[in-house]
Amino acid sequence: MNPTRETIEAYYRSLQSDLCDRLSLLDGAASFGVDEWQRPEGGGGTTRVMSAGNVFEKGAINVSAVYGPIPPELGENFGATGEQFFATGISMIFHPRNPFAPTMHANLRYLEIENSAAWFGGGLDLTPYYLFEEDAEHFHSVCQRACAGHTVADYATMKRACDDYFFLPHRGEARGIGGLFYDRHSDDLHGQFVFQRELGDTLYESYAPILERRRDTPFEEKHQRWHRVRRGRYVEFNLVWDRGTKFGLQTRGRTESILVSMPPEVSWEYASAPEEGTPERTLLNLLTGEPRDWVR
Amino acid sequence: MNPTRETIEAYYRSLQSDLCDRLSLLDGAASFGVDEWQRPEGGGGTTRVMSAGNVFEKGAINVSAVYGPIPPELGENFGATGEQFFATGISMIFHPRNPFAPTMHANLRYLEIENSAAWFGGGLDLTPYYLFEEDAEHFHSVCQRACAGHTVADYATMKRACDDYFFLPHRGEARGIGGLFYDRHSDDLHGQFVFQRELGDTLYESYAPILERRRDTPFEEKHQRWHRVRRGRYVEFNLVWDRGTKFGLQTRGRTESILVSMPPEVSWEYASAPEEGTPERTLLNLLTGEPRDWVR
Repeated sequence: MNPTRETIEAYYRSLQSDLCDRLSLLDGAASFGVDEWQRPEGGGGTTRVMSAGNVFEKGAINVSAVYGPIPPELGENFGATGEQFFATGISMIFHPRNPFAPTMHANLRYLEIENSAAWFGGGLDLTPYYLFEEDAEHFHSVCQRACAGHTVADYATMKRACDDYFFLPHRGEARGIGGLFYDRHSDDLHGQFVFQRELGDTLYESYAPILERRRDTPFEEKHQRWHRVRRGRYVEFNLVWDRGTKFGLQTRGRTESILVSMPPEVSWEYASAPEEGTPERTLLNLLTGEPRDWVR
Repeated sequence: MNPTRETIEAYYRSLQSDLCDRLSLLDGAASFGVDEWQRPEGGGGTTRVMSAGNVFEKGAINVSAVYGPIPPELGENFGATGEQFFATGISMIFHPRNPFAPTMHANLRYLEIENSAAWFGGGLDLTPYYLFEEDAEHFHSVCQRACAGHTVADYATMKRACDDYFFLPHRGEARGIGGLFYDRHSDDLHGQFVFQRELGDTLYESYAPILERRRDTPFEEKHQRWHRVRRGRYVEFNLVWDRGTKFGLQTRGRTESILVSMPPEVSWEYASAPEEGTPERTLLNLLTGEPRDWVR
């Protein structure tokens, strides 16, 4: 039986609540605020943001469930005919304070065009500022395990889609070391939802062990500077290329909930490039090279 | 007689050189580097950047002259048929260190479609972080005077176009207090070029007196924080809405020369808003209200 809108939204809400609890505990210093908001045309959401934590300089988990007549701008994007839509999703971003701890982003979503079509999409990806191979291997192992046993999911395909999507053409750079990405999966909605829950339930495990390893690594101003410059690339990707962000801003979504993904402190430097033989250069070489396979 | 490509480019180059000299002198601590670059498909440019100055945290003046077959992406934008194009322009941005000193941006450009069309465009605009009415009045007075006596220029029209263009729909905010903006002016190319030179020759005067007044105003961390947050709006405008930036990035222009406009240190804060009765609120009220007239 296909999952109902209510069931899907309820899962996203419980996941939000659970992750906020566990990540506050992991952080130890700050907790997630709660902002409920309404969408004038129908529906609304809950944006939960933490800042100035021990581990997280900024973290946010957003859940929304919106519905109503399909806005004209949306018609073409949906590639489906119909008059009413329903969309629900959870998205999250974590910007750790420590430059050696990576940023993590994840998103699970469901969209329905009344009497016409329904699909799931989502994924998770990791953006390190310094490369630790064991972190990349851990993250991708968890991604691979989450796919295993689900006929609707194929790790290799979703890993490739993630590498393709999180790429900055104007820099010739990957955003990070990838993960999983998929969109518009409409076959076997029951199986899709089971897979989404597996993904959701695995998010903490994909990230927390990495944070535990890196949270207290000593760092200097030069590491923070690189951190801020690389965060600039994150901003560039989200504002120039990310379909969800561009689309949200152009269709007048709730700006603060969309741009909660922006990193807290960011720098741009003209034509700066790390020297050969440095850890900064190692990361850049990775991001400008062919995507690597992190698990066998 | 219409100006030649060479004459126009030579003017932009002399303006770049002159402004770099005068602004280095004004700054007193740093000078503009020189980066010459080539465009593989034809032409090139000179990007001159200053950073870590007394007055300017970052400043850049870019001149380019590029030509060749019209890229497919460009055809529609140009709205003109033809096989070869030539484009030259100067663009500049100055990000002062002091939060009480405004950012200034200006751009002059000429475009030609072989055997088909040619036009000028450009403008200048000011983005303060704190409002000083005398600064806005000075800037607009200079803009108005530059237009006077030129049949090709109308201050009121270009002022309105500037207010319309430098606006962030997703925030409902103007980027700053405006200035002049125009595009695709193809009547009387000789008169247009005379007007461009007047605009170019007036840039220093539009900005330098404001910098002299604000460069040494004492400030605290709270002012810098607001400065960084507002610079985030500048980034949002340039990456999400600015036609030149989007277009440059999507058509694989020289990324470093395009994104040299990015401010040096930037912050994003979730849903932060200045308190009533503060100077920060005064600025925000101005930017979210109807555009003001700064000269009679």
